[in-house]
Amino acid sequence: MKYSFRELLNLLGICLRGKQAKPAAPPALVEQKSTEFEAYAASVRADYEEALKMLVEIPSVSVDPERKADIQRTADAAVALLRSIGASAEAVKTSGNPVVFGEILTDPKNQTVLLYNHLDVQPADPSEWSSDPFKMTNENGVYRGRGTTDDKGPAMAALFGAKYAVDHKLPVNIKFIWELEEEIGGPSFDEFINANKARLKTDSIVIADTIWVSRDRPAIPYGLRGLQGMLLRLTTAAKDVHSGTTGGVARNPIAELADVISHCVDAKTGRVLIPGFYDDVRELSEQELANFLKSGFDINNFMRAHELKSVRTTDSKDAARRIWALPTFEVHGITGGYSGPGIKTIVPHTAEAKISMRLVPDQNPGRAAELLTNFVKSINPDVEVVKLDGLRPYLGEYGGPYYQAASKAMARAFGREAAYTREGGSIGAALSMNETLKAPVVFLGLSLPEHGYHAVNENFDWQQAGGGIQMFCHYFKLLGEMK
Amino acid sequence: MKYSFRELLNLLGICLRGKQAKPAAPPALVEQKSTEFEAYAASVRADYEEALKMLVEIPSVSVDPERKADIQRTADAAVALLRSIGASAEAVKTSGNPVVFGEILTDPKNQTVLLYNHLDVQPADPSEWSSDPFKMTNENGVYRGRGTTDDKGPAMAALFGAKYAVDHKLPVNIKFIWELEEEIGGPSFDEFINANKARLKTDSIVIADTIWVSRDRPAIPYGLRGLQGMLLRLTTAAKDVHSGTTGGVARNPIAELADVISHCVDAKTGRVLIPGFYDDVRELSEQELANFLKSGFDINNFMRAHELKSVRTTDSKDAARRIWALPTFEVHGITGGYSGPGIKTIVPHTAEAKISMRLVPDQNPGRAAELLTNFVKSINPDVEVVKLDGLRPYLGEYGGPYYQAASKAMARAFGREAAYTREGGSIGAALSMNETLKAPVVFLGLSLPEHGYHAVNENFDWQQAGGGIQMFCHYFKLLGEMK
Repeated sequence: MKYSFRELLNLLGICLRGKQAKPAAPPALVEQKSTEFEAYAASVRADYEEALKMLVEIPSVSVDPERKADIQRTADAAVALLRSIGASAEAVKTSGNPVVFGEILTDPKNQTVLLYNHLDVQPADPSEWSSDPFKMTNENGVYRGRGTTDDKGPAMAALFGAKYAVDHKLPVNIKFIWELEEEIGGPSFDEFINANKARLKTDSIVIADTIWVSRDRPAIPYGLRGLQGMLLRLTTAAKDVHSGTTGGVARNPIAELADVISHCVDAKTGRVLIPGFYDDVRELSEQELANFLKSGFDINNFMRAHELKSVRTTDSKDAARRIWALPTFEVHGITGGYSGPGIKTIVPHTAEAKISMRLVPDQNPGRAAELLTNFVKSINPDVEVVKLDGLRPYLGEYGGPYYQAASKAMARAFGREAAYTREGGSIGAALSMNETLKAPVVFLGLSLPEHGYHAVNENFDWQQAGGGIQMFCHYFKLLGEMK
Repeated sequence: MKYSFRELLNLLGICLRGKQAKPAAPPALVEQKSTEFEAYAASVRADYEEALKMLVEIPSVSVDPERKADIQRTADAAVALLRSIGASAEAVKTSGNPVVFGEILTDPKNQTVLLYNHLDVQPADPSEWSSDPFKMTNENGVYRGRGTTDDKGPAMAALFGAKYAVDHKLPVNIKFIWELEEEIGGPSFDEFINANKARLKTDSIVIADTIWVSRDRPAIPYGLRGLQGMLLRLTTAAKDVHSGTTGGVARNPIAELADVISHCVDAKTGRVLIPGFYDDVRELSEQELANFLKSGFDINNFMRAHELKSVRTTDSKDAARRIWALPTFEVHGITGGYSGPGIKTIVPHTAEAKISMRLVPDQNPGRAAELLTNFVKSINPDVEVVKLDGLRPYLGEYGGPYYQAASKAMARAFGREAAYTREGGSIGAALSMNETLKAPVVFLGLSLPEHGYHAVNENFDWQQAGGGIQMFCHYFKLLGEMK
């Protein structure tokens, strides 16, 4: 069964509101594409690819302290790109990495939209990639390189959409925030938002850093999982020792952390075993779950897209609930022992487990960290528990004029109605901006599961980039019609 | 309470035997040192240090396939060293690394002794060392560098002892085996021994690759633990995936291996939980345990020597039993996840746990591997279990003419009576040579706990090297007097 956009909203009992809301005509199931925007996107394709390549080839890995200079080079390049379309722009200093801010002001009476993207990237191990992660390859419009889909590619789609608005004098004010600390939890982002409230003033916010469920079906998520990173550390000696000479007496910190982990999570089911962990998890309504499935979510496609050999559940409904509405306890790595070829018969002297918990409404990162810390200490008091930055989960209202516009823009650009989903990932900026700037957030992401967010051989493609440019053209045009 | 060597032997109920055994006079508690040997050792000190430095600075890391050329260079250097003292020598090809063989033949009627050492080394991560592991530093007779104590330093002590025998025409035939695959379990050693039985013919064997309990007390071990290396591998996807996008559905192979490990071993006590694992463990007699403690073994010294912050037992008796007479299940490392700074929010797609079990009489490596494999499969059938090379545990007879000579040589060189202990480590060559060449093995090791076998900042020192050279002079002299 399929629903029109209007039917879907009615079904969800969403009332359309917002200060400038006007009753919307029922949108067609598939909106008319604009040949003008299609032609525009094609005309800027070479420039888009050049800009993306330039950004991808600066390794802006925010987690790596040795990449500080590349972060700065990225900020400089971003300022230049913004200026090239006629925006005023600067790299704003913070106590951490700079935030790139740009704006194109037309008239204060026009709608103002704040576009958020981030230009820092995840680390990449070149030995695992089929090509250098920091050289962008372009094979018939498939762009491979770290950051192509997360989030430099979508950022450039927004930029070239904005260029259309500038060139055609659309009656809209566009502001840009390009963060450079997103991949490390945005430690300076709140500081930046609070210090720049006045010039960030906006009617609405667009974040283009989310992932569709499948290429066939544009998706607009209305919720995000939160995140709490933790490190579990145990040091039992000053150096690694010989497992023959000391084995049996020397403590093994990796084995002890393995024990702690096995107490925290049932690795087979994924069920978190920390007492009280699920207390604040908001029950998902059957209606929400039904909507999730309408997005085209299918466990077999999901497995194929992420190249998962086997999974914890093969039921699509259960899987959608797990990734969008249930928390996790994830082990990202255990370091400290021998990691070369074969075995080295040492007893490691220290070990660190890199952990994070994805959190859902109404869980609180601080509370989750506290529960984990107390539980780990009760199992093994010698384990040092380090709390990293946390991000609260986010649940937006769906409906409203910006969601309508977003949905129309998506449908017009990609020729398909957008689905209402959530995101399993975390975007710290969404919460900060929503709360501090008191403006609604819509998620106009362009990435696909097969693009490999945070993964090896990350890629993006012209189908999404070109469609994305058109989507932003439509969105700015719709905003211009709003006032 | 202290025992003389003779009293000790009586106490142990050991009858002195051997084809050329003659009744030994009760040795003095502390034997007379030889000023001649002392002077000889001092006279070759510079040559000793030069030879050791040359060997240490060739990174003969046998586990690393990229070090094949260094293995060959080490073999060539070793042949040259043997020839420099007048031995005939060659690097004997095997299907793996070559084995260096050398011999100094006087008269077939004289005692023949086969000296075993190995010249390959453990890997070393330069970032953890206080100086380059493959540049030997010499600070007032303390030699730091990978392989100084395990086993290049003791090998050179044996070489310079043999040089004395050559120079002074002692009536003894000396043969040398310098292995280059010991640190990877000696996969080609049996092949070498079997193929060269005739020229390896010997009356007795000396292995100088063991560790004293404390610097104050020379130790002659009579048993070794065995070893079975295993790899546990689990791959659940083709690549690492984003823990936001997939977390909750994607399996986490590190968490699953942590679960398997926690089923295999009680990390706190070290008790192995694999069913049937202890079935073949030979009970240690109270007498043996009492002897262990007479070696000067003390848990506080042990902790200090190995720089252990805390241990599984602080009772010396329990600790001695654990390291010399009980098996272990050790985790050397878990690879496959993110290992850089901070966290990277991926779900790893693959993980490998590097495991070994130390084994004691009468455990069998193949049987232990089978028990582990079946148990792991029963817990998680998806885990691939890889059996690496195994080494049987070894229990020699103590007593006999060579043990007497060894004990005397030790006491005369170091001024202290040797203690009867076992070794927690494994020396595959001991078993092969003992069984194939039908000759008794004595362990004349020179290493100390604080030298850091397999550890960072491995070192050796002139006190042990110079004493060791004298010990070998005494031993060859005693062998010469035997016929």
